[in-house]
Amino acid sequence: MVTFDEKAIIRNYEYIYNQRETIEKIADDVCAEGFDLLFFTSSGGSKAMMEPFNHYLNVYTKLPTDSMVSADFLLTGCNRLTDKSVAFLTSKSGDTKETIKCAEKLKEMGVRIVSVCGVENSKLAALSDYTFAYLDGRPQELVFWFIIGKIMYNCGYFPDYPDFADNLRGLGKALAQVRIDCDEKCRKYAADYGYEPYNIWIGSGDLWPTAYSYSMCVLEESLWIRTKSVTSAEFFHGTLELVDKDVCVTLILGEGVTRSQDERVRDFVKGLSDKFTCFDTKDYRLEGIKEEYRKYLSPIVMGAILQRIGKNAEVLMDHSLEIRRYYRKSEY
Amino acid sequence: MVTFDEKAIIRNYEYIYNQRETIEKIADDVCAEGFDLLFFTSSGGSKAMMEPFNHYLNVYTKLPTDSMVSADFLLTGCNRLTDKSVAFLTSKSGDTKETIKCAEKLKEMGVRIVSVCGVENSKLAALSDYTFAYLDGRPQELVFWFIIGKIMYNCGYFPDYPDFADNLRGLGKALAQVRIDCDEKCRKYAADYGYEPYNIWIGSGDLWPTAYSYSMCVLEESLWIRTKSVTSAEFFHGTLELVDKDVCVTLILGEGVTRSQDERVRDFVKGLSDKFTCFDTKDYRLEGIKEEYRKYLSPIVMGAILQRIGKNAEVLMDHSLEIRRYYRKSEY
Repeated sequence: MVTFDEKAIIRNYEYIYNQRETIEKIADDVCAEGFDLLFFTSSGGSKAMMEPFNHYLNVYTKLPTDSMVSADFLLTGCNRLTDKSVAFLTSKSGDTKETIKCAEKLKEMGVRIVSVCGVENSKLAALSDYTFAYLDGRPQELVFWFIIGKIMYNCGYFPDYPDFADNLRGLGKALAQVRIDCDEKCRKYAADYGYEPYNIWIGSGDLWPTAYSYSMCVLEESLWIRTKSVTSAEFFHGTLELVDKDVCVTLILGEGVTRSQDERVRDFVKGLSDKFTCFDTKDYRLEGIKEEYRKYLSPIVMGAILQRIGKNAEVLMDHSLEIRRYYRKSEY
Repeated sequence: MVTFDEKAIIRNYEYIYNQRETIEKIADDVCAEGFDLLFFTSSGGSKAMMEPFNHYLNVYTKLPTDSMVSADFLLTGCNRLTDKSVAFLTSKSGDTKETIKCAEKLKEMGVRIVSVCGVENSKLAALSDYTFAYLDGRPQELVFWFIIGKIMYNCGYFPDYPDFADNLRGLGKALAQVRIDCDEKCRKYAADYGYEPYNIWIGSGDLWPTAYSYSMCVLEESLWIRTKSVTSAEFFHGTLELVDKDVCVTLILGEGVTRSQDERVRDFVKGLSDKFTCFDTKDYRLEGIKEEYRKYLSPIVMGAILQRIGKNAEVLMDHSLEIRRYYRKSEY
């Protein structure tokens, strides 16, 4: 397996897991102060990474939740926000331009800010009421489970949260194994479709943000592969007409409440495209993880799977994932 | 000009305009009963057509507003909805499968339903508390201005609404003229780019739904042209890396609060792609419409402009906009 380091994967997982109590304390403080809205805002892949938590809050609780891209928020505002609201922002660099401006505006409005950054002492952290730096820790979603899951629990909506969080202790090892188990399929996928002229990516519910951001932030941004992403539901209202034997279609299936939408896409596309691939979290064992918690983990598991496409593609296509034409090379 | 009938355009506009009082009565009844949420839900292009009203309510009022694709709502619910909420649904056929199921679920929950349909006596109308059939009337957004604009006014947020609605009387004629004024540009666009292998479509704010649905429901569904649509804000977080001299990029600019995002895209792309087109509502006169109301009309004006691409493309490419591979031809 190319660029795979099982020990580093487990170590990076444990870096976050071992700070569980510190992170949960943020949730406790936020709950102690009360809130009238949990508001997720950031940019690009970072915003997409948080979006499933907006989804889970809507599906599994009555807590007020909303989300918006930071650049949009700067111009449109969000009319639900008040000085009793709490905003969640995340940025790997900690200095994403629109995200920082958004934090400044939120601070002015008196909205409390919880930030999760990839570096310490970032601009974003300096604007925050609560902050956590994950550094090499992965996956970032784990940080959000310790915050949002604990908020759900504190508010009476997720009584199993302590057991769920305990159960996550071994997930790092399981995710390393997922990478091993999917690698051959992902290597073949990268070899077969890396040079396709057009790639339709489809997902739903808590995996829609993954379909959206993997196609945009990895395939487009890092590998310059042309994509179209669409939700499983909306696929049937236009994009389906593009499907033909020769059109490359990729569907990601998870274990959340919208899985039936993905299955409908699978059943429709499978007889029509000769270049159709399904990546399904159900195909992968998560040793030690209780069956009833798998529905909360689709984005994390799918993230591990899809990472193996990129890692293989960069070697097979001789195209480093770090090359950019424009990002941080020109002003815009 | 191919397939252009100025008289029909004006007649179809007036069909809706002349029922202004009937439509506004829906708003008055909804307000008299009160509401705790205005909820927009439907499927595909119909949902996209309503989305700007969710945007305007957020930007210009403090009224609670939300939106969700019907198929998603069926599986995830919306935790803000109560039996005091009002839902808006629209469907040209009046029998879109997911939209009907959604209406049934809303009815069970005791949510009041306002529907806007393209035919009379539809399944959707039968499930509704209030309904309006626009038949050949266009644009459908006019119906929603008479409902949502009047609700804003009744709730104290849009004091100029009566003058705005009066001012719209002549918009049908102005929109016919927009079509005449843009036709040469749109014909050339269709001729130059109709066979491009990949088309990036970009828009923001109240025009994002237009970028999303025009590319999906016209270019993909009706003309089998491959697209990627992305918001002006999110373009800078991935898709920009695809841009090169040879990549076809189309930007739609409006006159709403997010215009600066579109201008940023324009300034970035113009030196990089030789196949870059901007369609800008500002380039078109709207005779008789007051300057201060243009910001509410970007989707309607852009709809008139883009319609001329499709009308020209279907002739130039000898591909009727009515042909489908799958829609209503197979079960899915």
